[in-house]
Amino acid sequence: MNKNIFIPVTTNASISEFASEIISIIRSNLTPGKLREAIGEYHEKDIAATLTSLTKEECQRLFRIMQPENIANVLEYAEHNDSYFELLGINQKTEVLFFMETSSAVELLQNLSKENRTTLLDLMRPDIRAEIKLISSFDEDEIGSKMSTNFIAVSNNSTVKVAMSELICQAAENDNISTLYVVDENKTFCGAIDLKDLIIARENTPLSDITTLSYPYLYAKMEIQDCIPFLRDYSENSIPVLDDENKLLGIVTSHDFIEILGEELNEDYVKLGGLPSEEDLAEPIFLSIKKRIPWLSILLVLGLGVSATVGLFESIVAQIPIIMCFQSLILGMAGNVGTQSLAVAIRVLMDVQIDHKQKAMLVWKEVRIGFLNGLILGVLSFVAIGGYLCIKGNAPYFSFAVAGCLGIAMNLAMMISSLSGTVIPIFLKKIGVDPAVASGPLITTINDLVAVVSYYGLSWLILLNIMHIA
Amino acid sequence: MNKNIFIPVTTNASISEFASEIISIIRSNLTPGKLREAIGEYHEKDIAATLTSLTKEECQRLFRIMQPENIANVLEYAEHNDSYFELLGINQKTEVLFFMETSSAVELLQNLSKENRTTLLDLMRPDIRAEIKLISSFDEDEIGSKMSTNFIAVSNNSTVKVAMSELICQAAENDNISTLYVVDENKTFCGAIDLKDLIIARENTPLSDITTLSYPYLYAKMEIQDCIPFLRDYSENSIPVLDDENKLLGIVTSHDFIEILGEELNEDYVKLGGLPSEEDLAEPIFLSIKKRIPWLSILLVLGLGVSATVGLFESIVAQIPIIMCFQSLILGMAGNVGTQSLAVAIRVLMDVQIDHKQKAMLVWKEVRIGFLNGLILGVLSFVAIGGYLCIKGNAPYFSFAVAGCLGIAMNLAMMISSLSGTVIPIFLKKIGVDPAVASGPLITTINDLVAVVSYYGLSWLILLNIMHIA
Repeated sequence: MNKNIFIPVTTNASISEFASEIISIIRSNLTPGKLREAIGEYHEKDIAATLTSLTKEECQRLFRIMQPENIANVLEYAEHNDSYFELLGINQKTEVLFFMETSSAVELLQNLSKENRTTLLDLMRPDIRAEIKLISSFDEDEIGSKMSTNFIAVSNNSTVKVAMSELICQAAENDNISTLYVVDENKTFCGAIDLKDLIIARENTPLSDITTLSYPYLYAKMEIQDCIPFLRDYSENSIPVLDDENKLLGIVTSHDFIEILGEELNEDYVKLGGLPSEEDLAEPIFLSIKKRIPWLSILLVLGLGVSATVGLFESIVAQIPIIMCFQSLILGMAGNVGTQSLAVAIRVLMDVQIDHKQKAMLVWKEVRIGFLNGLILGVLSFVAIGGYLCIKGNAPYFSFAVAGCLGIAMNLAMMISSLSGTVIPIFLKKIGVDPAVASGPLITTINDLVAVVSYYGLSWLILLNIMHIA
Repeated sequence: MNKNIFIPVTTNASISEFASEIISIIRSNLTPGKLREAIGEYHEKDIAATLTSLTKEECQRLFRIMQPENIANVLEYAEHNDSYFELLGINQKTEVLFFMETSSAVELLQNLSKENRTTLLDLMRPDIRAEIKLISSFDEDEIGSKMSTNFIAVSNNSTVKVAMSELICQAAENDNISTLYVVDENKTFCGAIDLKDLIIARENTPLSDITTLSYPYLYAKMEIQDCIPFLRDYSENSIPVLDDENKLLGIVTSHDFIEILGEELNEDYVKLGGLPSEEDLAEPIFLSIKKRIPWLSILLVLGLGVSATVGLFESIVAQIPIIMCFQSLILGMAGNVGTQSLAVAIRVLMDVQIDHKQKAMLVWKEVRIGFLNGLILGVLSFVAIGGYLCIKGNAPYFSFAVAGCLGIAMNLAMMISSLSGTVIPIFLKKIGVDPAVASGPLITTINDLVAVVSYYGLSWLILLNIMHIA
């Protein structure tokens, strides 16, 4: 019955302070030139944070004095940015889209009406349009949909001097310049150059001398989830993304990676609660109910199974009603131990590539810990509950017999919970089922059944059949 | 009783493939020159992955042919790197430390004996020694302990030309060159320059024209946890870290941030299981038991409280034993709904800076969802359990009376669980207690008590006192 869940703590950063300054500047009667200057002092993230507090007219006043590049950055920081985007004129729209990260532009375009989207695409530069089409061609689970097309590519047979002038020429349009990618005449990916090495190299050095050939890469059609450990392990500033013919399509920057991690984390919270997808405050209540009810129904059916099992022991409870008081305790403790084992199993499975022997070691270790912790808490419960029942006026013989059944059952249930809390995630991962969704109810139902059967089974055996208490 | 926990899926990346190639190269009888060339083809992360499979002699052979800079990178990727570091000669050690990120070097030095540490520090360049002392001076919860001292600083009254030559001069020793930091004569932080802007600027432009003055910054003594939303929201390549006098001490790069996120995530899994700190496979079993038992003991005491409450209703169960079969169902469903509300509350609290009105809206929405879901499942349970009890041979009047109590209690318990699953994390966050640790058992115990009291209370009222069934 215990649910220990992580809740991240966010702080009240001093955002609101900046935001109120920015708002009062926008509402002042400064001339456009002065206004631009004053707004230019603030970070685009802080400007984005004010948008929700501005009226439509104030947003328009703001966008009218800002450069398209800055508007693009503000919109990238803003949520629900399509409503603000709609406030721009058609020319401003195409310019803003030009400066946005392609993946952000794709997302924004998807929220517009089909008609508006087509008009805008027609007005855009052909190369940008091609990039947008490329990114939209990938499924949202594929890494290609998250990549950035904003990178610098140099030819593999140029020199440092040529690469340097290529850099200066491409830098105006590309943000990600800390790594340069080397491609051959067919655009096949050949290696990467650290900008630092390029800067300190002599002008006539052949590029191949400073090119890293062992640079890691991904394929655009790989599932995002599969790319995460890869991106984390090779902590590079950016990782190139190739098509099936090894042609360089784009890159995944560490920012993109942080965003991917954030989205995965959100999905995990959603899975944690057994919700099929994200919800927010604005979602209509009946949609929320519709989303949550299927999961609850499955849990209801599993819960009915546990209840039916408890029902098998009705006659024992009718004879010794006191034993049912401790059912919640046993089920709860089995669950708590199972959660600890699950947390450790997650930790170990997540962090390292472990082999079969290590998995077996983990299971064996958890079972022993479950047994020993169960022994300690079982003995404690035996003493505490035996004493409690005596104080409540029961005979000592009876009190400690009931407490003994409870203690032994607790020990047994805790050991088996540790086992299932370790084995089930390992097994689910092995057969390719997402353990995030499946292991919760499975482990819980098994633990509940084990706890119920061992507790009432022992009570029936010891209290009724051996000691003949009733 | 249900615990839905997220388990991340990691893939079996093709690491082992590269690793076995590297191992066979090291074990071949290539000459040192050829060996260096062959090893140079592989990424340092992949070389690091082979270390555990190599003998002491093979590691030494490998390190003897590698450059200190590469060894430093390999050691940064390796786990338990102090044992490999010990294989190096004293000169190689100081050189490797020179090339390592200061925060990694600090970590490594902490694992050495005090004597070895002092010897090495004495041999190091004074500026590097000062950086190591600076990083070690911060508490491991402070952002200063994670910062990188590897950045390029330029004076605020220089020109583009000066900054460019400064860059070329400092680039040899510094990896993080995509942002240059502007400081005044007292080292006070004045702003930041995007390398891209520097590259495309004309030689005689004053630096102030391309300096961003609204660049975000952190103070070294801030708690890491408090910096995470800040670092995430201002998605910059690196964020400067200042001392209390606004002097620039170091930077937090997006890599550092990814590492911080990873560590926080690990801590969360640990908290999830109610463990005080990380465990790994190698930890002795009695240490693991000692770590886990305090948390389990608290849960045992809370569970005893719930059991004592159930005990108050012993006489009702003695008269109508069938009702106790469904106790686990009610407690379980209340818990499941509470988990969903908690997951949504986490999602909303994490994502946006919400005000009191929005918090009240969230609570009100969750309560209504809890009530309506409870109504649906309560009616379903009423029909299903009423029917089930009839089939088992109970009188329809009795069966549906029991099922009715259950349905109403379930509805009530689900509504209150939604309320506590939303209000408790909001409240804990407000009073500054880490909700990750405290909200689990608190919510669970409250939900269990509510479910038990409403179920048995209703049974007592309706079945015994109104309908006089017994």
